[in-house]
Amino acid sequence: MKPMLKNSLKIPYGTRDFLPLEAACKRSIESSLMNLFTKWGYDEIVTPSIEYLDTLTIGNGQAIEPHMFKFFDRQNRTLALRHEMTTPIARVVASRMRDAVRPLKFSYVSNVFRYEQAQAGRQCEFYQAGVEFMGPSTAEADAEIIALAIQGLKQCGLENFTVCIGQIEFINGLMSEFNFSDETQINIREALEKRNLVKLHEIIEQTQLPERSKKILSSLPLLHGDKEILKKAWDIACNEQSRRALDNLSAIYQLLESYGVAEFVKFDLGVIRDFDYYTGMVFEIYTPEMGFPLCGGGRYDRMLSDFGAACPSTGFALGIERIMLAVEREGASSETLKKDCFVAYTPGKIKTAIESAQRKRNEGLVVELAPYAMTKEEAEAYQKEKKYASLLYVE
Amino acid sequence: MKPMLKNSLKIPYGTRDFLPLEAACKRSIESSLMNLFTKWGYDEIVTPSIEYLDTLTIGNGQAIEPHMFKFFDRQNRTLALRHEMTTPIARVVASRMRDAVRPLKFSYVSNVFRYEQAQAGRQCEFYQAGVEFMGPSTAEADAEIIALAIQGLKQCGLENFTVCIGQIEFINGLMSEFNFSDETQINIREALEKRNLVKLHEIIEQTQLPERSKKILSSLPLLHGDKEILKKAWDIACNEQSRRALDNLSAIYQLLESYGVAEFVKFDLGVIRDFDYYTGMVFEIYTPEMGFPLCGGGRYDRMLSDFGAACPSTGFALGIERIMLAVEREGASSETLKKDCFVAYTPGKIKTAIESAQRKRNEGLVVELAPYAMTKEEAEAYQKEKKYASLLYVE
Repeated sequence: MKPMLKNSLKIPYGTRDFLPLEAACKRSIESSLMNLFTKWGYDEIVTPSIEYLDTLTIGNGQAIEPHMFKFFDRQNRTLALRHEMTTPIARVVASRMRDAVRPLKFSYVSNVFRYEQAQAGRQCEFYQAGVEFMGPSTAEADAEIIALAIQGLKQCGLENFTVCIGQIEFINGLMSEFNFSDETQINIREALEKRNLVKLHEIIEQTQLPERSKKILSSLPLLHGDKEILKKAWDIACNEQSRRALDNLSAIYQLLESYGVAEFVKFDLGVIRDFDYYTGMVFEIYTPEMGFPLCGGGRYDRMLSDFGAACPSTGFALGIERIMLAVEREGASSETLKKDCFVAYTPGKIKTAIESAQRKRNEGLVVELAPYAMTKEEAEAYQKEKKYASLLYVE
Repeated sequence: MKPMLKNSLKIPYGTRDFLPLEAACKRSIESSLMNLFTKWGYDEIVTPSIEYLDTLTIGNGQAIEPHMFKFFDRQNRTLALRHEMTTPIARVVASRMRDAVRPLKFSYVSNVFRYEQAQAGRQCEFYQAGVEFMGPSTAEADAEIIALAIQGLKQCGLENFTVCIGQIEFINGLMSEFNFSDETQINIREALEKRNLVKLHEIIEQTQLPERSKKILSSLPLLHGDKEILKKAWDIACNEQSRRALDNLSAIYQLLESYGVAEFVKFDLGVIRDFDYYTGMVFEIYTPEMGFPLCGGGRYDRMLSDFGAACPSTGFALGIERIMLAVEREGASSETLKKDCFVAYTPGKIKTAIESAQRKRNEGLVVELAPYAMTKEEAEAYQKEKKYASLLYVE
């Protein structure tokens, strides 16, 4: 094979094809989630794959910019492939729905793009389904989206997962007591986000804090567990800001009990999400034996004001490929390609064959018509090969 | 508003948002087409949005390359956003399904990207749904995909459209008689594709052809009409190649009669599609008062051999936004956002409200839960504003 030709058969790093069975599984998960989101009053919205870089990095996107697929338009303005859907939807609301009655409830299922180390369940191009709930800044809104994310995973056939809920304002409250430099704050947050306890310990040791404060900071990543952890956290909540954050989590928990989904919930006060636009409750959903979350989300009350149209908001995104992987591992998938009938014919009988195929399709069956006249033996071999449940041979 | 902020609200040239009603219409058309394709035995396939430029321009992509969104990967190889789906699917078959039993039948619904003058129904990013039928080089396969395209448009609620069928080999046959330079051939094809009769006439006048040959070439764009046109074309078909092309069209027409869709069919022997990979039957579907086709397709028997895995193929792509526009103009759309019940509550009653909302959702209803306790008057106002059919007020 010529080398040029060989290269033409390759696909770029971090991309993948979905062959028919995988594509069917993807479609089934996506349809089932969109159907659920609709029933909860969330309307689908579709935005361009390409946005101006300035839009996607509004407010603060410095951390994510190196991971973006960037290029130039014909006027040399920098464009980027969207890396998530929350910012584009905020842009739509700020530009075209400034005066629409709140709350606004949107859903999406989209591909997004990030230059990252490709791994199982996460390529550089991957698919997300999610919702945004814009308007109310209530615990009710936060509880609704957590309950909806749980419902979504259950609908996909998953039962074995844990929701880890944190609160950015709890950490912010603690931080505000310590007068850290910006750099130290960023380093601490990064260590928390990556759950790098060694690094966190190093940073804390380098500070001039009193022992008690060092202890409080070091204990942050250990504050995870069931609702009792909120009481423990109360002991180190040193100001009004961090105490309000804990009250907010208690309120959300109570509501999740009303939704009947509290069994899935743990708290983890060290949770910091990968985007720095979060301002309140944040959550991630994990399943055993997978080192990355199936779902991430939280409250982002400032993004819309960065676009000039203040509006408190909350939302989440589910990772489609990760759900596919989890469904496969739990053995919850029953996806097969439905193949009902292969219709073949002897020479001169194609008209009858066409009519029979059409009749069966109108009845809802999946029917393939032979592409030329063939013998019954050939037809039987093809039917078997392609796993059609039945053969209609017109002669 | 700060100028930076104002720019962040803009979207790139040739892109668009689909607001909820538009997104619902798009989803309904796409689902209905994919459902139809499945029933005809076509399996969905999903490929990356990004491919190597070498892949997308395999064989011959020179004409389309200037219209591509190109950029570099981290190793400085040229990537491009896919401009259509036929080439990526051919790449999948050549790389991962070389030995799979033929025929192969694939469907897709995807966004594709082309730098072009944006117009109603065709942005630089737009959506296509289509099929590829790979293996047989029979008139039966060509007739099946034409019949399926017609069925697809009917399923979307359209009735008023015309399929214009041509045959690349008819034109190739004529051209081979005249010993044109490559440049003249390209110019003639371009004039035909753009239906620029003035230009065509100019080019023909500049040639040294005998009068009879000039007349034949000039008459090409006039060879359109019902099946009688095939007889007329027979008179100027000066060699075996062009006569075989006409026989092929007759055979396809007869099969389309068997499918009961011949009423939609016209012939147009001047049809040249915008991609130069077509090798046989080509077709476009038009609807009155729209200057661009809703659908285009045809036979491309050489593409798979360019990828090193020879396999005759035929297929089509329907333009989703163009169908949306046609459906709107024909008044065939009944798309509305289904909104069944708004559930609101007095303070302290949220648990009952959550349970009622969940019960109704389980019954299949679209239910929105109030994001905070409100008075009955507030609830009624919101219900009216958001057009919910009913209100459940829990007190």
